[in-house]
Amino acid sequence: MTQIPAWPAQLDTPYLLIDEAKLKRNIDRLQSHIKAQGSQLRPHLKTLRTLEAADYLLPGKNAPATVSTLAEAEAYANAGYTDLLYAVGIAPAKLARVAQLRQQGISLHILLDTPEQATAVVNFAELHQQDFSVLIEIDSDDHRGGIKPDASQLVTIAAQLGSHFSGLMTHAGGSYGCSTPAALQTFAQQECDAIRQARQRLAEAGIDCPITSVGSTPTAHFGTDFNDISEVRAGVFTTFDLVMKNIGVCTMDDIAMSVVTTVIGYNKEKHWLLTDSGWMAVSRDRGTANQAVDYNYGQVCRLDGTVINGLTLTGTSQEHGVIELPQDYAAGDFAVDDFAIGTQLRILPNHACATAAMHPVYHILKSDNSHEQWQRIIGW
Amino acid sequence: MTQIPAWPAQLDTPYLLIDEAKLKRNIDRLQSHIKAQGSQLRPHLKTLRTLEAADYLLPGKNAPATVSTLAEAEAYANAGYTDLLYAVGIAPAKLARVAQLRQQGISLHILLDTPEQATAVVNFAELHQQDFSVLIEIDSDDHRGGIKPDASQLVTIAAQLGSHFSGLMTHAGGSYGCSTPAALQTFAQQECDAIRQARQRLAEAGIDCPITSVGSTPTAHFGTDFNDISEVRAGVFTTFDLVMKNIGVCTMDDIAMSVVTTVIGYNKEKHWLLTDSGWMAVSRDRGTANQAVDYNYGQVCRLDGTVINGLTLTGTSQEHGVIELPQDYAAGDFAVDDFAIGTQLRILPNHACATAAMHPVYHILKSDNSHEQWQRIIGW
Repeated sequence: MTQIPAWPAQLDTPYLLIDEAKLKRNIDRLQSHIKAQGSQLRPHLKTLRTLEAADYLLPGKNAPATVSTLAEAEAYANAGYTDLLYAVGIAPAKLARVAQLRQQGISLHILLDTPEQATAVVNFAELHQQDFSVLIEIDSDDHRGGIKPDASQLVTIAAQLGSHFSGLMTHAGGSYGCSTPAALQTFAQQECDAIRQARQRLAEAGIDCPITSVGSTPTAHFGTDFNDISEVRAGVFTTFDLVMKNIGVCTMDDIAMSVVTTVIGYNKEKHWLLTDSGWMAVSRDRGTANQAVDYNYGQVCRLDGTVINGLTLTGTSQEHGVIELPQDYAAGDFAVDDFAIGTQLRILPNHACATAAMHPVYHILKSDNSHEQWQRIIGW
Repeated sequence: MTQIPAWPAQLDTPYLLIDEAKLKRNIDRLQSHIKAQGSQLRPHLKTLRTLEAADYLLPGKNAPATVSTLAEAEAYANAGYTDLLYAVGIAPAKLARVAQLRQQGISLHILLDTPEQATAVVNFAELHQQDFSVLIEIDSDDHRGGIKPDASQLVTIAAQLGSHFSGLMTHAGGSYGCSTPAALQTFAQQECDAIRQARQRLAEAGIDCPITSVGSTPTAHFGTDFNDISEVRAGVFTTFDLVMKNIGVCTMDDIAMSVVTTVIGYNKEKHWLLTDSGWMAVSRDRGTANQAVDYNYGQVCRLDGTVINGLTLTGTSQEHGVIELPQDYAAGDFAVDDFAIGTQLRILPNHACATAAMHPVYHILKSDNSHEQWQRIIGW
């Protein structure tokens, strides 16, 4: 049995627990890897969205970081961070908030992939005498946004942006569908090759490209060719989760986030435990549903973190969870009676970003066993 | 085209919009129905979790209400509400917070279905000279928690609770699997019959049962036999959603909740619009996935609320949504060019409880076209 202090058993459940030692280990691992491959990390802060997590992820206030909302950009800017990429295609109506941050001295980079957005940026810039820093999104895996590296619009949009153009960005979200190192390396290579092709075309048109940004958690860990890429992004690696375990980016032991829950009932005929971990606590995310191992709504562990093989959070409603015990428990597995009312358990999440999003406060189990609370930055 | 005021187009997206006129209409409809059937409503406040919504749902501060967390109970108690049912099986560790509220004069009822929980209640009561009001959960549809009305434990637990016993409660969550009025009426009848059978057994044992509580949104609307049932519970009916529309409890026009989003990109080859409504805004809930009509992540409407038939939010990532236009749009449907960058749309939710849970603030479109903001009560 792992030794844990007394305080995790004394808090009201459900709550989100983060294991600081694992968090640090995950961050150190990726930072070392990216540095060894000749690039730098621009971590995505969207998973944990707290000022404290940024302290762990960023070596200093001027280190590059990625955010998913302007609310995050504003919160990190107010805390002194100065180099932020808002990695969602810019809506023209949001340019005023972007300009506000840039006027405060924040190097806030924005993203776009259409001539219409570029026109909006250029018009706003002219009207308000405002400079912007814009990355063009490149589609390297046919997954979501971006334009293809060989698309004619690439040079047109970059030229249209003129001095506001800063570089290229791609995100291989398609890598989430992989489960072998070879496939993940291929996606990582694809990201870099797409950026290189686009950069070459811009160079031929006389357009400089200071920022080249690639990454997703799987490709960041499996890429080995970042030497001429200025930065690599990744987000969920901070705590990892069951989806990443299934993809093969981490082990179960690396997962630094769990939801602590209490057994509040049972149904012996059905071999069910009822818990207070509904989807309000674990989220509705079923990210492992189509993977090799389906963990339903999460992997069940003892309060000390020991994984209970074969037990998952089978179902959820708003504030109720159901853990269905194996039907052959009479033959030596677990019986309902092994989990008394009041027993506390931990649930490892399918998708850490989605689970964290359900919690306004996180409870941190520090390496010295002390307890810390982090407040999530909320809203858009 | 419906007339809407200017302000909804001026807020930053994504945000949650509630149509006050529809909210009122939905509440009036169910209150009238339950009253006509000889019972009273104990609305579940868990869908909207705001003080303002409670004002609409409850005729007065001492009107009965249901909550899903002690955090809600504490917030409503502080606002002056005095009759609250915490409708999740009680964890022994939470009795201290329950006692605290009861000492403040709140008639807070709790729920349980095991002898172990009853023992914990009785022991706490004796140790702290504290009275409780306990409902026993009855399983009327083999769905989640509760004991069967003919189970021997029923009388044992009620006797064990003694003066702390207040009555019986059941929730036909299984009714969510129905889609015909006849099936919904059957579930409603089952709820009442299970409670009547349990009450009769208690009466034979000389135990009085002042509170009899049944309900779910579908059964509350389709039940016609509440005359000897003291109260009926329902939650999601306040705003309804696509799941309820598929079940047949409401029409599309009754849905009072939507997420307002902006078009932030497109992919013409794939006939995709990209929006800023990711799962952070609409939730990961795919409640319509196994229903007759699958709305993916929600039904797309124009900003004025007009439903765009055939358009759904096809996919989501954290802060991105994808709306896939019909592949035959060339034949007369919609083309990507019909939705310029910056166009605002509304997404009707699969599951209003889950979508509301993603938003710390709701924006209310009042009947007089004015704008109000409601703060969600958060945490456990």
